[in-house]
Amino acid sequence: MVNGVSTGAGEFKGPALRFADPRRPWSVEQSYAVVSGVSGGLPDVLDWIADKRGAQNHRVSRIPFGAMRNWHFEDDTGDLRHDSGRFFSIQGLAVETDFGTVRSWSQPIINQPEIGILGILVKEFDGVLHCLMQAKSEPGNLDGVQLSPTVQATWSNYSGVHRGREVPYLAYFRDPPPADVLTDVLQSEQGSWFYRKRNRNMIVQTTDDVPLLDDFRWLTFGQIQEMLRIDNLVNMDTRTVLSCAPADGLSPGDDWGSLLTETEMLSWITTRQAEYQLHTRPMPLASVRSWTRTEDVIAHERGLYFRIIAVDVSTDSREVDSWSQPLIAPHGRGVIALLVKRVDGVLHALFNARVEPGYLDVVELAPTVQCTPENYAHLSQAERPPFLDVVLAARPEDVLFDTEMSEEGGRFYEARNRYLVIQVDEDFPDDVWPDFRWLTLHQTGRLLQHSHYVNVQARSLIACMRGLR
Amino acid sequence: MVNGVSTGAGEFKGPALRFADPRRPWSVEQSYAVVSGVSGGLPDVLDWIADKRGAQNHRVSRIPFGAMRNWHFEDDTGDLRHDSGRFFSIQGLAVETDFGTVRSWSQPIINQPEIGILGILVKEFDGVLHCLMQAKSEPGNLDGVQLSPTVQATWSNYSGVHRGREVPYLAYFRDPPPADVLTDVLQSEQGSWFYRKRNRNMIVQTTDDVPLLDDFRWLTFGQIQEMLRIDNLVNMDTRTVLSCAPADGLSPGDDWGSLLTETEMLSWITTRQAEYQLHTRPMPLASVRSWTRTEDVIAHERGLYFRIIAVDVSTDSREVDSWSQPLIAPHGRGVIALLVKRVDGVLHALFNARVEPGYLDVVELAPTVQCTPENYAHLSQAERPPFLDVVLAARPEDVLFDTEMSEEGGRFYEARNRYLVIQVDEDFPDDVWPDFRWLTLHQTGRLLQHSHYVNVQARSLIACMRGLR
Repeated sequence: MVNGVSTGAGEFKGPALRFADPRRPWSVEQSYAVVSGVSGGLPDVLDWIADKRGAQNHRVSRIPFGAMRNWHFEDDTGDLRHDSGRFFSIQGLAVETDFGTVRSWSQPIINQPEIGILGILVKEFDGVLHCLMQAKSEPGNLDGVQLSPTVQATWSNYSGVHRGREVPYLAYFRDPPPADVLTDVLQSEQGSWFYRKRNRNMIVQTTDDVPLLDDFRWLTFGQIQEMLRIDNLVNMDTRTVLSCAPADGLSPGDDWGSLLTETEMLSWITTRQAEYQLHTRPMPLASVRSWTRTEDVIAHERGLYFRIIAVDVSTDSREVDSWSQPLIAPHGRGVIALLVKRVDGVLHALFNARVEPGYLDVVELAPTVQCTPENYAHLSQAERPPFLDVVLAARPEDVLFDTEMSEEGGRFYEARNRYLVIQVDEDFPDDVWPDFRWLTLHQTGRLLQHSHYVNVQARSLIACMRGLR
Repeated sequence: MVNGVSTGAGEFKGPALRFADPRRPWSVEQSYAVVSGVSGGLPDVLDWIADKRGAQNHRVSRIPFGAMRNWHFEDDTGDLRHDSGRFFSIQGLAVETDFGTVRSWSQPIINQPEIGILGILVKEFDGVLHCLMQAKSEPGNLDGVQLSPTVQATWSNYSGVHRGREVPYLAYFRDPPPADVLTDVLQSEQGSWFYRKRNRNMIVQTTDDVPLLDDFRWLTFGQIQEMLRIDNLVNMDTRTVLSCAPADGLSPGDDWGSLLTETEMLSWITTRQAEYQLHTRPMPLASVRSWTRTEDVIAHERGLYFRIIAVDVSTDSREVDSWSQPLIAPHGRGVIALLVKRVDGVLHALFNARVEPGYLDVVELAPTVQCTPENYAHLSQAERPPFLDVVLAARPEDVLFDTEMSEEGGRFYEARNRYLVIQVDEDFPDDVWPDFRWLTLHQTGRLLQHSHYVNVQARSLIACMRGLR
């Protein structure tokens, strides 16, 4: 039967077989090229953020653990938990691996087994796709308000454990018509700080008349892209969702060539997963070696890695008006960098197959460099992360991207990283390190349709690189 | 620069950018059409198997646990372990989930954290791709010898813990030239019997002069396909590797249309992963409720599910000449079936998003029906697996495939399942059950390039369906 023709009995049968809509990646691409939209130009948008930064009355103060409302250290384990048993807890994790220079350790880690939703609602205005973005403050944020997705909802948020206000626009992401979904994939978060946490990264398109709440604006992809160049403005959740958006390289026939074929890339990842052992075992926080707890901080004995602190938060713009919570405060500012080069005109980036204790599947692809240099200060030159010195010594004309961005302010206190994209010459050596490979953005775009492949730091940089071709 | 041209200085620079070789899936397809190869016709191959069944001197006898050499029950946990600490152990697992009718239970499970290699070496003879297949007996096999991949190696095998003979042909799979790899992906095994076990499924092509050892023959894909129609002949490891072979639907531009687009399919899988909770916790085998251990069996109190037994094995065809080991002996013969239908001429099969306690990522796609009917005998009609009655009542002309096949004989004792493919009418209802969706073989072929998507029972049926178009 030919699709969509009359079956002769007065019925009209619609086509049963369906095909990917080729207009979809194109409409995302097109929106990337537009920097003025229904909310005005970029200056208008920045004014709006500045207004919100002034208006959102968000007070964060450090308090002793004992002063936290609704949180307690468990008697037998020393784990830090919410009285409801929900949200997240801070526990211990024992780690053994044959990856890297340190093979066995224990550490505090956030355990948040629920899958949350990070969702961006998109809609066409004047033929251009716009994203419904939120000016949202989080207790750990530098500068308070950052540009956030339409929805950031933990299961506790949307199941009502919060006893707070309803999460606006959440209904668009709860059970969307399948044809309206542009992106829907579980992605991991920081594997050194979170134990097996994943969030659902979603982009859903609507043609509804959507009421525009205070704190929300419709922005083009191109406007968000410009805002990524401003320090600590676009939050981590926005970056990870954008990295998974359908755009270049996501239509199946679109093959520009690459240093590795698809099969070779997947086989390399398989070798890394099969090669490395990672055994993790949750343990009582009180038994973690080399970490000590005082009345207001849990810290490593040498001051490295991160501290756990407690804060009291009050605000008038959140579902709940005031609360206390623990936060992870990383030590020092991280350097997160991708080396890139053009091979016969096609942009490639150097990814690192990296083991982190919180990954569900042992290895994910990380940027070329992902470290906090200060944590390596006590180690020898040979133990410094590979390529860190290449990044730090880059000539200004080779720095394609350089912005300080922060990690999720709902869990991390002023967690700042310098995100860099550094170009190197085409004859920069290939494939001599078994844990590093040059991949194109078309290839990582396809990997990002699936879980377990690309870590959150690499996803941030991939989002930032949309503008580089 | 144009690829492959002189750079003018007397050098010749080869092309740097590479593309998937379109000939590769084609050469696999072509071999599927060939049923006579360098080892003769199918009757010759069956004679060879019959000879091997007569010749391989494989004696398996049940023994009490206390008579096992090199295995012991641990004092404090009752876990069954090898004295070396390697191979695998049998432990307890506590399971809580909101999937299915039983929400909380504990059970014995095999813990084998090492990643093994299941590898098929392929080579062209007279322009036709042939697979190097092994006539191999395993202690749990019905009829002793079955058709097995070139290599089935646990890490213990190839690291020398066995103290036995070297695994032949293993070198081809240890560090193959990337361009020779057709398939290399980690896939799960039975999630009810194994805790998070995965093996590396590999197909590697060679142009070497490969010495042909006794017990090995070069067979075309078409010959193996014919042998899949004979009961208990092609082993599980062969079936899973074949299911991952590049063939139809694996060239990226090849889109025949489907009831769901790629994005819709992936979003459906994401909803299932996000929807269901699965919490598992390893526990002492001795503490597992409703299971009891006697001197020669560990069994469920109602005789359901499976038993754990011990066997003594002697053989002259293995790396080690004699050993004892535990085996899992399932209760009853399973029914594993896919419903299929044509939609505008394109074959679709009905897959079930299924939670099993041993999956690393909560949900994998299972066949339409996967059960042991006898385990449901004590339950009400409403609790019977959906579609089981459709399968059992199928008219003979609608049964496209019906073969009894066994699961891995190195771990399972006479684990037999009836594998069926049943065709239904095009107007068989669509998408009314949230855990079931119709997918094309092109779509599952793409999913099979990745871990965590398709379970081992579904992979067996996908291998069997290569012949159905």
